Amino acid sequence: MSATPKIALVTRLSDDAETNWLNLLRAALPAEHIESLRRMRPEDHAGVEIAIVANPDPTDLRKLPNILWVHSLWAGVERLVAELPDFNRPVVRLIDPQLSRNMSEAALAWTYYLFRDMPAYARQQRAREWCQQPYRSAASVTVGVLGLGELGAASAERIRAQDFNVLGWSRSQKDLPGIISLSGKDGLAELLSHSDIVLCLLPLTEATRGLLDERAFAAMKPGAALINFARGPIVATDALVSSLDAGRLSHAVLDVFDQEPLPPESGLWSHPGITVLPHISAPTDPRTGAQVVAANIRAFRENGRLPESVDFATGY
Amino acid sequence: MSATPKIALVTRLSDDAETNWLNLLRAALPAEHIESLRRMRPEDHAGVEIAIVANPDPTDLRKLPNILWVHSLWAGVERLVAELPDFNRPVVRLIDPQLSRNMSEAALAWTYYLFRDMPAYARQQRAREWCQQPYRSAASVTVGVLGLGELGAASAERIRAQDFNVLGWSRSQKDLPGIISLSGKDGLAELLSHSDIVLCLLPLTEATRGLLDERAFAAMKPGAALINFARGPIVATDALVSSLDAGRLSHAVLDVFDQEPLPPESGLWSHPGITVLPHISAPTDPRTGAQVVAANIRAFRENGRLPESVDFATGY
Repeated sequence: MSATPKIALVTRLSDDAETNWLNLLRAALPAEHIESLRRMRPEDHAGVEIAIVANPDPTDLRKLPNILWVHSLWAGVERLVAELPDFNRPVVRLIDPQLSRNMSEAALAWTYYLFRDMPAYARQQRAREWCQQPYRSAASVTVGVLGLGELGAASAERIRAQDFNVLGWSRSQKDLPGIISLSGKDGLAELLSHSDIVLCLLPLTEATRGLLDERAFAAMKPGAALINFARGPIVATDALVSSLDAGRLSHAVLDVFDQEPLPPESGLWSHPGITVLPHISAPTDPRTGAQVVAANIRAFRENGRLPESVDFATGY
Repeated sequence: MSATPKIALVTRLSDDAETNWLNLLRAALPAEHIESLRRMRPEDHAGVEIAIVANPDPTDLRKLPNILWVHSLWAGVERLVAELPDFNRPVVRLIDPQLSRNMSEAALAWTYYLFRDMPAYARQQRAREWCQQPYRSAASVTVGVLGLGELGAASAERIRAQDFNVLGWSRSQKDLPGIISLSGKDGLAELLSHSDIVLCLLPLTEATRGLLDERAFAAMKPGAALINFARGPIVATDALVSSLDAGRLSHAVLDVFDQEPLPPESGLWSHPGITVLPHISAPTDPRTGAQVVAANIRAFRENGRLPESVDFATGY
């Protein structure tokens, strides 16, 4: 092991969360000397070859003049790219096969959140009100999943397995057991008009930007709810707020926003019909994540090769 | 069909919820004339033979002098019994085979509520705070189910199927696939010390009254959470509040209480570590419930027989 750390952990995580990553990474890479930038002596900065980062402060990253490449602990690196437009070293994203399992778990958990009336019971608790919401069985509730890629398909199947009716919509017609798969403009209208809960897991493309707009909300079943676990700009936020205010939609669970972190002054934080989540639907599991990072670093040490890195021109 | 209603629906439900029941009961019993007491003319009260009730106002029930028997739409009739101690007509409870399905669904839904940190995210939203809680996989979390009767076993299996580790505890050792089954005093201590979430589905008996007391909470894993979907008196409420206040336990989801409805002045409503639910974990599904009630009424019309009715001396 080298006397000075050759790998730096650079994050804006809490001390506890960072220490957890540090311990897991050290256990997975016993031949490496890894230290948190927070606990590193300034004279050691120049010796760092690899930065493992999670939403790093760009100023921190610039303290390390000799890094060869960066491994992000997150799958999304839009912010890193936006904050370091002139950064000319490869950035490797974390691609963890656990991701679709964690996402489908979140899809089911927040489907239950809406289906079992947790927002209403929270409101009633604040008002000290004892009132049983009418119960509908899962089999009488339809969940519409927008996007049937890896994450959408896994979520649709997991929700279907708990007796909900599931409709799916994607660019190309899919064939998933037990799930009615729709596509095209008419298919979207059909899904929206039949779903009690619409779960958005679409990729953000020019075709999906603003797809959930005033017209889409008007096409939804009265009293339906929305979950957006995809990307903020797919939803026209003003139109969503109007639909909630008018009582057309009953609730929205938003994990993604046009700007993240959601600015403290945003009105979404205090809207009674909106549950704000800080982009946690498909979190990185440090245990499996550390293994993936370690494998990439070992491969680099052995043959100098990197997994495909982020293209700063397109941002992904 | 008779000119005046022979069956009255007597509830304290909202108009919408009552109308829903009325429509389903009429559809299931086309040969009967059923009316809500709210919409009945006073001169028709004397003609009513059967009252179908949901938490009725005792004054309302006394308006019907000639009822032969009462069908409750709820499984629990403790309150009816308490409020009408001199009521000398049979009371039939609703026994719906859907119950254990609905209960296991609630067990999974509120396990996810705790596991996916919904209480913390709700607090953060109120504080406009964007902060990702550390993620642990379901496979690294242990749920301990107290009580492995019909409801407990169904819940344990459903939670196990979503990758959680599940420990079960019951009076007699059970054999459920994938679930470590414990019993006895040592078994209880073992379950409490290993569980991140303890789910109580025990029956209320002299052996379980106050079982979850100061000593039990002290035996629990630091930071663990409790879900009580069984009966209020199984939990020593003061000891629970002390354990939450001391930070030994992280959260409690309570659906049942010593007194129900929970009185408006109770401090539990405003405790930040307690989620108060109005006894909704295993709600009656009106669709299946109406079928069960209709079958009981048809059998009575055919042969004059009633299902086993409530013993007002013991209260169940």
